Amino acid sequence: MVSQTVQTAVTVLGMGPMGRALAGAFVDAGLTTTVWNRTPGRDHELVARGAVRAESPEGAVAASPLSVVCVVNYDASDAVVRRDAVTAALKGRTVANLTADTPDRARDSAAWAADHGIGYLDGAIMTPTMTIGTPAGVFLYSGPEQLYQEHRPVLDTLGGTHTHLGTEIGRAAAYDIALLDIFWTAMAGYAHALAMARAEGITAQELAPFAQGIAAILPPLFGEGMDDVDNGRYPADINPITSTVSTMSHIVHTSEGHGIDASLMRAAEGLARRAIGRGHDADGFMRVIEIMNPR
Amino acid sequence: MVSQTVQTAVTVLGMGPMGRALAGAFVDAGLTTTVWNRTPGRDHELVARGAVRAESPEGAVAASPLSVVCVVNYDASDAVVRRDAVTAALKGRTVANLTADTPDRARDSAAWAADHGIGYLDGAIMTPTMTIGTPAGVFLYSGPEQLYQEHRPVLDTLGGTHTHLGTEIGRAAAYDIALLDIFWTAMAGYAHALAMARAEGITAQELAPFAQGIAAILPPLFGEGMDDVDNGRYPADINPITSTVSTMSHIVHTSEGHGIDASLMRAAEGLARRAIGRGHDADGFMRVIEIMNPR
Repeated sequence: MVSQTVQTAVTVLGMGPMGRALAGAFVDAGLTTTVWNRTPGRDHELVARGAVRAESPEGAVAASPLSVVCVVNYDASDAVVRRDAVTAALKGRTVANLTADTPDRARDSAAWAADHGIGYLDGAIMTPTMTIGTPAGVFLYSGPEQLYQEHRPVLDTLGGTHTHLGTEIGRAAAYDIALLDIFWTAMAGYAHALAMARAEGITAQELAPFAQGIAAILPPLFGEGMDDVDNGRYPADINPITSTVSTMSHIVHTSEGHGIDASLMRAAEGLARRAIGRGHDADGFMRVIEIMNPR
Repeated sequence: MVSQTVQTAVTVLGMGPMGRALAGAFVDAGLTTTVWNRTPGRDHELVARGAVRAESPEGAVAASPLSVVCVVNYDASDAVVRRDAVTAALKGRTVANLTADTPDRARDSAAWAADHGIGYLDGAIMTPTMTIGTPAGVFLYSGPEQLYQEHRPVLDTLGGTHTHLGTEIGRAAAYDIALLDIFWTAMAGYAHALAMARAEGITAQELAPFAQGIAAILPPLFGEGMDDVDNGRYPADINPITSTVSTMSHIVHTSEGHGIDASLMRAAEGLARRAIGRGHDADGFMRVIEIMNPR
């Protein structure tokens, strides 16, 4: 039984930058690492380091109990694993799909896997390629607990922190989407601030140290009042939402006064004004959660 | 000459939470602190601690070489300092206006002050009330360097870090606006992520530790590549913008699939797609700066 033996082999489908990083970490850990990519020629360095090039995707998945898939999105993932020959070869084996996409796509793939006798774990990699194989990597998983435990020794060779978020297969993708939402919204805000700063004669290098100071406020703040949020309470601990909208309109006016697109802040201000319009003027800004997603 | 003597008196106009914190720090530093507020009754605790209650705003500003103004916005500030009696009493004295508003309002007030023989500094307080009088406070100033140096000993008694950003009077407000833009856009992104997480059955308390991990990436990241930004170069160091828009559309679809407003991420995705549409598909996401504010 696969689950009772020490796994010494793993397959990686997808040789983009992240797939290559994953395969490289498996090779470094001494696993027999079989690799395949739709477009050939991306595995030369890995093969030179000891990886085994499969001639076909069905050959690749047949080589190991666990196939790790990491491609651009689930359309690309489906185009490989749902080929008849590949699906047949995966029967009785496990796919850990680390491809980023929506929770619904993960659920759809888990249903497909169940229909074909394939073990299925979904995962998300929260850190960039250079963290793979180092303690800085952050990996999230969801799917059957036993399946996760069975393949954990192989996955752990990728280094970093591995968290099983629960059996509901969409959970890793849902965390991934929520965390990427935080990240890219913040980056968009920073881009807008840099655009406004330039219009005001402030360089990026001048603003950056102060921007870093503001960003450093966020990690502790993101942990505060979460119990309140879970209970639909949004107290104005420091700033009432009325003060926030005043700030937001200053930002919009300064931006648009320079002819700079302020669509992000207009969206945020609109949500806050709707919260006030619904009578929540004494609350804090996080009340907008209930405007976006009413209970 | 005021500039040659050690100032031992200061006036604070505005007794909101921040104005009271400023006055309290001045009292604690042993300065003769005169206070005034449009709506009476907010200064009882301060007066009990030793502050002097002025009977009129003109009396308040006449009591000290420096009047620190901290009210809700420049409309409120103008309503006090531009009264004829107050303007007359301020002649030969200095106003340090720590009220938050746009750079244009600061420029307009500096012109008014110059017309009336009043020294004028603009300032911004980047940290919450509880940091005032502690090493955690962050204060930004702009305006004449000599005027800043003259009043710096009094302002320094507020504790924390004080930075003079330059003589251009709008500079403190411009930094303030840009930094608040970063802060509130990030908070809006977090609110949206929490709204989506709830729809996916993830509580705020469950998401928070991971959100804090993502937020911790931002301070170092905000310092990277600033020289490139200043030179209009936006290399795709880790993520090409084509990968970012793929992520953004996953976020929008997941959000709207739950009926959750995704107007912020739609705005961010739209900017990124316009950058790609202008031929910058090999660049990083920060290329959107040039979409918002073309050179």
